[in-house]
Amino acid sequence: MQNDTICAIATAQGGAIGVIRISGPKAIEAASHIFVPQKGKPLRERKNYSLTFGKIFSDRGEIIDEVLVSVFRAPHSYTGEESVEISCHGSAYILQQIMTLLLAKGCRLAAPGEYTQRAFLNGKMDLSQAEAVADLIASSSAATHRLAMNQMRGGFSQELSILSDKLLHLTSLMELELDFSDHEELEFADRTELSQIAHEIERVISRLADSFSVGNAIKNGIPVAIIGETNAGKSTLLNALLNEEKAIVSDIHGTTRDVIEDTINLHGITFRFIDTAGIRQTSDVVENIGIERTFQKMTQADIVLWMIDSDSETDIEALKEEILPHLEDKNLIILFNKADKVNAERCESLSNAFGDVDAPKLFLSAKNRTGLEKLETLLVETTAIPEISQNDVIVTNIRHYEALVHALDSIHRVQNGLQMNLSGDFISQDLRECISHLAEIIGGAFDPNAVLDNIFRHFCIGK
Amino acid sequence: MQNDTICAIATAQGGAIGVIRISGPKAIEAASHIFVPQKGKPLRERKNYSLTFGKIFSDRGEIIDEVLVSVFRAPHSYTGEESVEISCHGSAYILQQIMTLLLAKGCRLAAPGEYTQRAFLNGKMDLSQAEAVADLIASSSAATHRLAMNQMRGGFSQELSILSDKLLHLTSLMELELDFSDHEELEFADRTELSQIAHEIERVISRLADSFSVGNAIKNGIPVAIIGETNAGKSTLLNALLNEEKAIVSDIHGTTRDVIEDTINLHGITFRFIDTAGIRQTSDVVENIGIERTFQKMTQADIVLWMIDSDSETDIEALKEEILPHLEDKNLIILFNKADKVNAERCESLSNAFGDVDAPKLFLSAKNRTGLEKLETLLVETTAIPEISQNDVIVTNIRHYEALVHALDSIHRVQNGLQMNLSGDFISQDLRECISHLAEIIGGAFDPNAVLDNIFRHFCIGK
Repeated sequence: MQNDTICAIATAQGGAIGVIRISGPKAIEAASHIFVPQKGKPLRERKNYSLTFGKIFSDRGEIIDEVLVSVFRAPHSYTGEESVEISCHGSAYILQQIMTLLLAKGCRLAAPGEYTQRAFLNGKMDLSQAEAVADLIASSSAATHRLAMNQMRGGFSQELSILSDKLLHLTSLMELELDFSDHEELEFADRTELSQIAHEIERVISRLADSFSVGNAIKNGIPVAIIGETNAGKSTLLNALLNEEKAIVSDIHGTTRDVIEDTINLHGITFRFIDTAGIRQTSDVVENIGIERTFQKMTQADIVLWMIDSDSETDIEALKEEILPHLEDKNLIILFNKADKVNAERCESLSNAFGDVDAPKLFLSAKNRTGLEKLETLLVETTAIPEISQNDVIVTNIRHYEALVHALDSIHRVQNGLQMNLSGDFISQDLRECISHLAEIIGGAFDPNAVLDNIFRHFCIGK
Repeated sequence: MQNDTICAIATAQGGAIGVIRISGPKAIEAASHIFVPQKGKPLRERKNYSLTFGKIFSDRGEIIDEVLVSVFRAPHSYTGEESVEISCHGSAYILQQIMTLLLAKGCRLAAPGEYTQRAFLNGKMDLSQAEAVADLIASSSAATHRLAMNQMRGGFSQELSILSDKLLHLTSLMELELDFSDHEELEFADRTELSQIAHEIERVISRLADSFSVGNAIKNGIPVAIIGETNAGKSTLLNALLNEEKAIVSDIHGTTRDVIEDTINLHGITFRFIDTAGIRQTSDVVENIGIERTFQKMTQADIVLWMIDSDSETDIEALKEEILPHLEDKNLIILFNKADKVNAERCESLSNAFGDVDAPKLFLSAKNRTGLEKLETLLVETTAIPEISQNDVIVTNIRHYEALVHALDSIHRVQNGLQMNLSGDFISQDLRECISHLAEIIGGAFDPNAVLDNIFRHFCIGK
């Protein structure tokens, strides 16, 4: 338990309602100093999970605001500590005044994330759950929300806990072999059986680590590069795609331009657009200026939209020669833009020119916003992201991914050791390392006694 | 009572916590459809002013969020209706999902201010109090907060109510005179006495109407123009003043650049800077280009800061001749900028050049930020705004001001009528008009029966 009491404004500036959170041993006391209920009992005598209407007064007796105060008693609060929430009018001045009063009554300004940190320190959640809270708040699509919610509710932790139990079991078997190798009357699992268990563990850690590529794409968006000549209409297309999305988002929330800049959300999948320089082309030679930088940027992309200006006399063969070698491992979609300006014959000839390229092709007009829906469908179909449910455990956090990679290294060493018939000491050491890497994720330190406890709890050697 | 149930996101986007408000006859029912308590009784059986922890589920059974739900039963809520508040994680996605669910369960998106409108319609507050809620939320200084808080708590309404009672009393006396003028046995207040009452009422309405100039200055800021030659350092000064303020504000709230752009708050008083064009001066002739527009803008200002570049060879006499005639009714402060660049002799000569101008004079360096504190003190001292307390009734709303001006017209006609010994019919008509104008402010329609009720309640004519 922390000894000091923290306070912070928990809502963004500019709404009708502002909420101030107080947490710590003196939360209710500090609030009582500045809050007078409209009627009835003082705050400290209020029930857990009750709301009280009343006024916040300044030291000079001026009314700062009429507010609603929520009381949460330890351990039945988010942080596990005594907590108070003050719901006031969303005026910057009022919020600041209340904060100033609370600071004067002995509260301290909370550091970023300190509420969740306290929840972790007080055992209300593990580290991976705490991290998921930030992801949940930042979630902007069905997929990111689903992953964060599962992680926050402990789905990942549970998977890790099962894994840890298996590792502990294996370690126990190894150490049992060591400690009691003299007792000939005891039978031990043979090395083949141990290898099977190790293989199973390796498979689970490997699956979790592999899920990061999907998790990362979901969390940060699937990188999409739009390439093409400078006047092919790349910006027009990007704006058309972004605007459509913005219109939907702003229905309820007003403009959110800053937040969704350059990412769009289609069917719950986020696509992140990579800014590429336009490719400049002279009459018959593709210039290297610009194209080099574009190719560099393109390496980050999963999907490449190659825009062709249908209405220009581009030397398509030269472009293909220059660009196609760079696209081998990319999901390519070819877009013939300005389709409104050309006739059927031209369309036919463009299609033929790309006949040897195995990629979806689409005629559209970014300016007139025709063909956009088809493009969006194509984008969704092109992504390798599987439909995920709230029960799927997908790693989205790079810290977790790194811990899993380290755990995978350890378990590989265990597998090698078993195969090479190494002594139990060595193998046991690697197993402990593997457990310790997994423990990093949920924030618990690896307890070496756990192995011994496990031995004596489950095995009861002759007693 | 309204028949439909409304819902809205009550917090700004981007905080840790988001709050959704639901109000109307089906508020608790709609929330019950999507919310499952962690344990215990269903939402509809929860006590008034209780908090319940639980989960919001989508129709497909997916968990949208873990939330806290507040229940308020009619009429003990802000709107006077059944109300529910959902406190969830501040994710745009989660807020939008919950809103979508509520709309599907029969709620309607609330119009701006509709919660307060319902509070007014349900008799929880009068119109001037409802208007004060918006002012309170927008309040950014001690003074604006004080005025809005007094108005929201009914200070203005109370003053108007006392005034209305006096007017009603006077009307009763007039109509009594009319109705019972045949009954010679009854005695009536003489016209001198009536004039005295009318005068007293006129004084109060007049004081309220006059307070608008102060109220408006407090609410919208005291207009300050910074004038001077183009290179005198006007922008540098403005930025220096603004930055200082921003640094203070951003301590807790982060940057609020958009909100306080071009206004600063000194000792609780807001100053609003009017953008003026620089005055261009050639060697000996003050050019008229620019200066005309500046003079036009200057008419809006209460305070004029005239900046002189101490280090330039300006023809001060020519400038004075051009500028001073326009400053007669303004509070002028003369600033000698770039004081760091000149010697004592030059300072002396500048002071002497303005010896005949009756205004505070200050040497400063906007660039080095020296002299700024003195300037701020001067600005505060120059304002005619009296120190106000939370009990002072000051009119800040132009709608209220206009109603008061109309009421003042009516009462002036009453005074004239009494003086000219006009018949009671005419005078009574003007009195009713006066009451009706005051009633506009608090939003109640003027009830003509009130006069008769008042007569029979207070006078009991021989019965």
